[in-house]
Amino acid sequence: MKTAAPVYAVIMAGGGGTRFWPWSREKQPKQILPIISQRPMIFETMARISSFIPPKNILIVTSRVQVNALHRQVPQIPRSNLLVEPVGRNTAPCLGLAALHIEKRNPEAIMVVLPADHFIGNPRRFLTTLKAAVAFAQKSDFLVTLGVTPTEPETGYGYIQRGKTLGRVGKMPIFQAKAFREKPNRSRAKMYLKKGDYYWNSGIFVWRVGVFGQAFQKYLPQIYQEMVKIRETLGTPSEKKALEGTYSRIQSISIDYGIMEKTENVALLEANFLWNDVGSWAALAKIWPADPSGNVRPQGDRQRRGNVLAIDTSNCVIYSGNKLLALVGLKDMVLVETKDAILVCPKDRSQDVRLVLEEIKKKGWKQYL
Amino acid sequence: MKTAAPVYAVIMAGGGGTRFWPWSREKQPKQILPIISQRPMIFETMARISSFIPPKNILIVTSRVQVNALHRQVPQIPRSNLLVEPVGRNTAPCLGLAALHIEKRNPEAIMVVLPADHFIGNPRRFLTTLKAAVAFAQKSDFLVTLGVTPTEPETGYGYIQRGKTLGRVGKMPIFQAKAFREKPNRSRAKMYLKKGDYYWNSGIFVWRVGVFGQAFQKYLPQIYQEMVKIRETLGTPSEKKALEGTYSRIQSISIDYGIMEKTENVALLEANFLWNDVGSWAALAKIWPADPSGNVRPQGDRQRRGNVLAIDTSNCVIYSGNKLLALVGLKDMVLVETKDAILVCPKDRSQDVRLVLEEIKKKGWKQYL
Repeated sequence: MKTAAPVYAVIMAGGGGTRFWPWSREKQPKQILPIISQRPMIFETMARISSFIPPKNILIVTSRVQVNALHRQVPQIPRSNLLVEPVGRNTAPCLGLAALHIEKRNPEAIMVVLPADHFIGNPRRFLTTLKAAVAFAQKSDFLVTLGVTPTEPETGYGYIQRGKTLGRVGKMPIFQAKAFREKPNRSRAKMYLKKGDYYWNSGIFVWRVGVFGQAFQKYLPQIYQEMVKIRETLGTPSEKKALEGTYSRIQSISIDYGIMEKTENVALLEANFLWNDVGSWAALAKIWPADPSGNVRPQGDRQRRGNVLAIDTSNCVIYSGNKLLALVGLKDMVLVETKDAILVCPKDRSQDVRLVLEEIKKKGWKQYL
Repeated sequence: MKTAAPVYAVIMAGGGGTRFWPWSREKQPKQILPIISQRPMIFETMARISSFIPPKNILIVTSRVQVNALHRQVPQIPRSNLLVEPVGRNTAPCLGLAALHIEKRNPEAIMVVLPADHFIGNPRRFLTTLKAAVAFAQKSDFLVTLGVTPTEPETGYGYIQRGKTLGRVGKMPIFQAKAFREKPNRSRAKMYLKKGDYYWNSGIFVWRVGVFGQAFQKYLPQIYQEMVKIRETLGTPSEKKALEGTYSRIQSISIDYGIMEKTENVALLEANFLWNDVGSWAALAKIWPADPSGNVRPQGDRQRRGNVLAIDTSNCVIYSGNKLLALVGLKDMVLVETKDAILVCPKDRSQDVRLVLEEIKKKGWKQYL
């Protein structure tokens, strides 16, 4: 497959490092941790596309506190490709900023959007799908999103319902996206799964940068007007100040809510690779290798870290530290030991690690953030 | 109250340090840990009786691996009062050995037997009760035991059923012991509680050393014959060798099973102090101070050790170490962190810490024993 226009990737890597506390920290967020393999997630994300999109065409959008740590993990990507937002304003401004940079390099460019910290189980199939999305985006005015075929009634993801068929790329069908749905409750998720025309919203997007710019201008005109003020300062000494001014004035809004859900112009490419947004410790139950009792530990964990003795213990997510971790009679728990902290909670409460962080902030224990 | 004969106490301190693993270890057994207060349990046990029985009359029976550590905790007790068994053979030989020593010092002596590692909530009432038992033992040929009035259908203790009334010491009734019962199941324990004539077997005994010697000779003649061989060697260079010979030949048997359950000659003094044998981590739920959610931590723990954040967490037993311990959504769990190990288990599995130790032995991880 040949692409006439250059393809750029934008990796969104601004996450705050709370969901995998105490492993993840403010200065050591999820995307630079070796969560799904023995390499940092950002490295895996880059490596997954590097045969298709060279590092010089990969941009990373992140925060000031993370940029140096990120750069160390992917030194292949030029430092000037790491875009720093002065403050997080959710995904719409993040992609707006990236689009300005890409448009400046080539207004005909195709822009691929990837979260830095997702798990993809079949990298080859992923790449084939991504290439198909690029091919379709290139010859159309659609904002293309990858909709992952759901395999269970997951309540932690947003869903996209497909509409009419727009065409095919190779064997892969492309549909018009009919409706975006927020994270459903269990019974609704079951209904989505049963109906068969709903997909998981992967947060992976492909579009022509110009098409995206037009949609941005149409659906988020106020942010657009602020963002374009940055354009002429890019690469000049006043860029930083302009960025700070813009970001201080714009609202915080997601790309889904701000644009994708509002336009008719969204195409959904059916994606059949294993995918997981790795949104909490509990998610690792589906990603890390399991022992016969269903207890999971990181790849290579038995070699690298502390000993674990699990007796009558099943379906737990275990990240051990330097101490002997002895577990008796546990089920469906998360057990984490790091250098300075221990977390114990049931798997179904692992989202509530944020409550721990709130409490830590209240108490002013900054060393644990 | 005046006692004509001298009173000696024997503190049994041979426990192997498994129930409070990973806090307790082979060389740091329960009895030298500050479990129920900020002082070692052996110290509390000595201090509780020291106004009544001076340290020079307190003997401790222990094992070679523990004797030095014990001596450091109670230096008030002369080193020569620490009797070392070459190997543990349960409580009957332990008390036989102590009786030999006491008899040698004074054949008219009263012998008080105390476990080193129990919790007693009302030390004054305990002492009053103990003095009454001594007074009764002195003028009778009974083996006196303290029967604790049960307050709940505890399944972790042995029970003693009282028989006819033998008399009173002050206001305290003394009964003939009718039957010893092993740890009951729940419904049987409830029945015991309801019937009102059952008591918890405290393992606290009082008798004239001569009366005990006669019972020993009658019910455990083989062990008796072996034990008396030690008698003439006491205080001589051949004592150690004689002890080793005797202990290599005698059977392992408890005082309850070997003597108390077999003789008619047992008196039960009703004891109304708070008592707990502190047999597992779960027992601390009734001893350590609780926060409003029912989570317990050691006395002074908040000052001494690591931080704990307990969110939606109730009725847990928490012994924190040097790391921040973050708990979310837990109920009725035991959470322990020490220098080199972490234990997590439900309270009702805390007896099964022994399974962890078995596993550690199998794996040859001696540093954790």
